[in-house]
Parts: sequence; structure tokens; C-alpha cells
Amino acid sequence: MTLGRVAGTVVATQKDPGLTGFKLQIVQNVDIETIEPSSGFVVAVDAVGAGEGELVMCCSGSSARMTDSTENSPVDAVIVAIVDSTELGGTLVYEKSKD
Amino acid sequence: MTLGRVAGTVVATQKDPGLTGFKLQIVQNVDIETIEPSSGFVVAVDAVGAGEGELVMCCSGSSARMTDSTENSPVDAVIVAIVDSTELGGTLVYEKSKD
Amino acid sequence: MTLGRVAGTVVATQKDPGLTGFKLQIVQNVDIETIEPSSGFVVAVDAVGAGEGELVMCCSGSSARMTDSTENSPVDAVIVAIVDSTELGGTLVYEKSKD
Amino acid sequence: MTLGRVAGTVVATQKDPGLTGFKLQIVQNVDIETIEPSSGFVVAVDAVGAGEGELVMCCSGSSARMTDSTENSPVDAVIVAIVDSTELGGTLVYEKSKD
Amino acid sequence: MTLGRVAGTVVATQKDPGLTGFKLQIVQNVDIETIEPSSGFVVAVDAVGAGEGELVMCCSGSSARMTDSTENSPVDAVIVAIVDSTELGGTLVYEKSKD
Repeated sequence: MTLGRVAGTVVATQKDPGLTGFKLQIVQNVDIETIEPSSGFVVAVDAVGAGEGELVMCCSGSSARMTDSTENSPVDAVIVAIVDSTELGGTLVYEKSKD
Repeated sequence: MTLGRVAGTVVATQKDPGLTGFKLQIVQNVDIETIEPSSGFVVAVDAVGAGEGELVMCCSGSSARMTDSTENSPVDAVIVAIVDSTELGGTLVYEKSKD
Repeated sequence: MTLGRVAGTVVATQKDPGLTGFKLQIVQNVDIETIEPSSGFVVAVDAVGAGEGELVMCCSGSSARMTDSTENSPVDAVIVAIVDSTELGGTLVYEKSKD
Repeated sequence: MTLGRVAGTVVATQKDPGLTGFKLQIVQNVDIETIEPSSGFVVAVDAVGAGEGELVMCCSGSSARMTDSTENSPVDAVIVAIVDSTELGGTLVYEKSKD
Repeated sequence: MTLGRVAGTVVATQKDPGLTGFKLQIVQNVDIETIEPSSGFVVAVDAVGAGEGELVMCCSGSSARMTDSTENSPVDAVIVAIVDSTELGGTLVYEKSKD
């Protein structure tokens, strides 16, 4: 999985019926060592109610269809978690409560 | 999923039977921050009737087979939506009506 | 899907039984704007009887198993079409009859 | 599969139910010729009880759902082994007991 | 599929039960035009009994589970063939008997 920040949204009314009811979030990748924005974005279905700016974990590929809401849907990326904290080498790198 | 502009088409008569009836669109990636063309193209089946120049959302991999028309077909990319608008950091980046 | 030219072949007699009878083609990627060779090759099973030099469309990943011949086989790339023509921005870029 | 070192952890309480009970490890890629850290990280579910600093093997994509614990879960990367040793060209490159 | 040389091995005793009995080979990518080593390695399960130094063909992703031995296993890369010869543009590039 990858970590990123919810950076925006995509709105589309003319779409495959399998996408009905999904919130489409634009997620910007972050550097996992600093949690600063890095290059690269993905449009992901939000399965956890993430808000703009929140640090989230995304799952890609066929596994993106393994949440209750995305089963059998034409989606290749889904937000599966809102991150509370990350730690690298015993040091706290990110803490949601201080974000 | 990724965003791109429909840039052209591919025509092929000698093909796997599983591709019969599909419109094959060439989609050029766009920079999600500016909606300007970026490097990279993909040939995708059109599941939503997109026209040349339109901003679309593509789904890749096995999930490209999750639309009604592409089920069990040998396709790894499909256009699943025509984008109405995108927003980043609270600012409208793209609006179809002004495109 | 991606476009490429059939550039050569791979022969292998000691192989998984699931590959028996397949023609293994080396396909060189092309720049979709010029149809000139670009970097990158893939070895793909030929599902359409493509000849060396022909411009073809390849399908990758699990969808490569969605042709009649490749079902349940250990293949991750397959040639699914021989390209007749491509068009970009209303301009004909490639035409097989003039190739 | 790829080799990497367990470098840290991700904690998330607000998540898809399919992730319940999983330990989320941050794995840093290593250069397979030297076993030194290289660029790139992945967040992977730990299926083998790996500890921080250990050299592990990760499996990605749909195959990440093929362990007993990750079946049908929205995960695209899993730690499937703790590496004892690696050898390249007849020379021992890494030995866990000397790590 | 991709071509590479068997360059070494990975040994792991603490692993997911689904990996039991597999030989884990380190495969180094080769430049398909010269069959010289290029950057990039993958750890692949050996389904064909390849020996160190041999030129092999690897299959990745979910299709890596389509050999008899790797069915339902947490593996994302498998050696599916030992290459006898390759040809590009009508010229023999590699011949196993002269390797």
C-alpha cells in the first residue's frame, strides 16, 4: 500500500454505473520519510470517509475491489485507512493529533 | 484511476474476438495539477461514449474488466467516466462547461 | 493497452506445460505520436497471427489470460490485435496499407 | 517478489474492516547486490511476524491476498518470508546470522 | 513476459506456508537486444528447474499463479521457461548451445 494526502476531488456524472455513489478523491503521494508531498497523484475511491488534507493509505490493483463498497466495481485504487501515526527506525514521523 | 484526454483512436479488424464492438481510444495523460497534457498514452476501451478532446478517467488492470461491456474481455484499460470538474486544495482546477 | 512492433521471437522447449503451442513474440514499444520504435520490449503470446514488423496492440496483466488460447495460462502479455490505422487529433498517424 | 528491510510501522484505527488485526509494516527496498537500502518504500501487511530491521521478501498485487491471513482483504503487499541468506554468482551476499 | 539470467538464490525458512518447497531464484533482467545484464532484479519461483546463469523467461502478477506448482500461492513472479534462442529482425541474438 502507499501513503498520500487527500488533495482534492473529481466529479463525474457521465460514468459507468459501477461507479455510482462513490466519492472520488485525488490523493497526492507523500515521501514516507518526511510525510511531505512528493510527485504523483492517484484518483481513488474513498472507502473510509477521509477529509481533504488527511494522511491516508491507498490500496491499488485488483485488491482495490476488496472493500464492501467497491466489490466488482471498475476501480483500481481505494482509500482503505486514515493514518493515525507512522514510525521509522523507532522514531515517530507522523502523528495525526499534531497534524 | 488516472485522468487523461481522449487524443485519438486505434482501428483494428484482425483482432481477438473478445474485442469485437469496442471503440479503442488513445488517451493522453494529463498533469492533475494543471490538466495540461503530460507524457504517456494508453489505449483504452471506451465504456462511456467519450469524444475526442474530452477529459476522462481511466481504470487499469483487472478492474478494467468490471464494466458491463468489458466483462471477461482481454482489455487492461477502460474509460469509466467523463470528468465534469476537478478541485485541488479547495480551488476549482477544471470545469467541463468552460473547457 | 499498448502499441508495438513485432520485432522477433523467443524459442523455448523446456517450459511450463501451460505455454505449450504458443508463439512467443518480442514486441518493441512504439511512440504513439510517431509510431517510431521507443525503448522497452515485452515478450507476448501471439493470439492473432501477427508477422514480424507488424504494428500490434498488446494487453498485459491478468487480462492477457482472457483470449481463448491463453485462458488459465501463465502469461502476462498477449498480442490481441493487428493495427489497421491510428489517428491523433483528427490526423491519420499510421495506416497499415502504407506501412 | 522483492527484498526489503522492515523500517517502521503505520498505525490506523479508522480503516476498512478488512484490515482489522493486520500489522502494517513499512518496508524499505534494498539493492539486491549489496542488501543496502535503496529508494522506495511500501506499506505491507506482515504475514510472518517480522521485526524491525529484518530482511524480508514481499509479494505484491493480487498475490498478496494468497496468504491465510490476507485472503479477500484489501491489501496489495504482504511480507511472506524472513530471509536467511542470499547468494549471487556463487557468493554469499547476506546471512541473517551475521546481520 | 520478461527475459533474465538466473543470478542467485534466496533462502528463507520462516515463511508463509504457501511458499513451502519453492526454489526462490534471483533473476537479473537482460537487455533484449544484446542479452547483456541490465538493471533490475526480481525474486521468482522456479517452475522449470533452471540453473544459475541460464537465460529464462519470467511471468509476473496474478499469472505467476497459473503454473501447476504455484496455484493459489503468494507469489508474483515465476520462471516459466528456459530460453533456447531469441531472434530480432531475422538475426539470431541468443543461442543456448553457444552460451
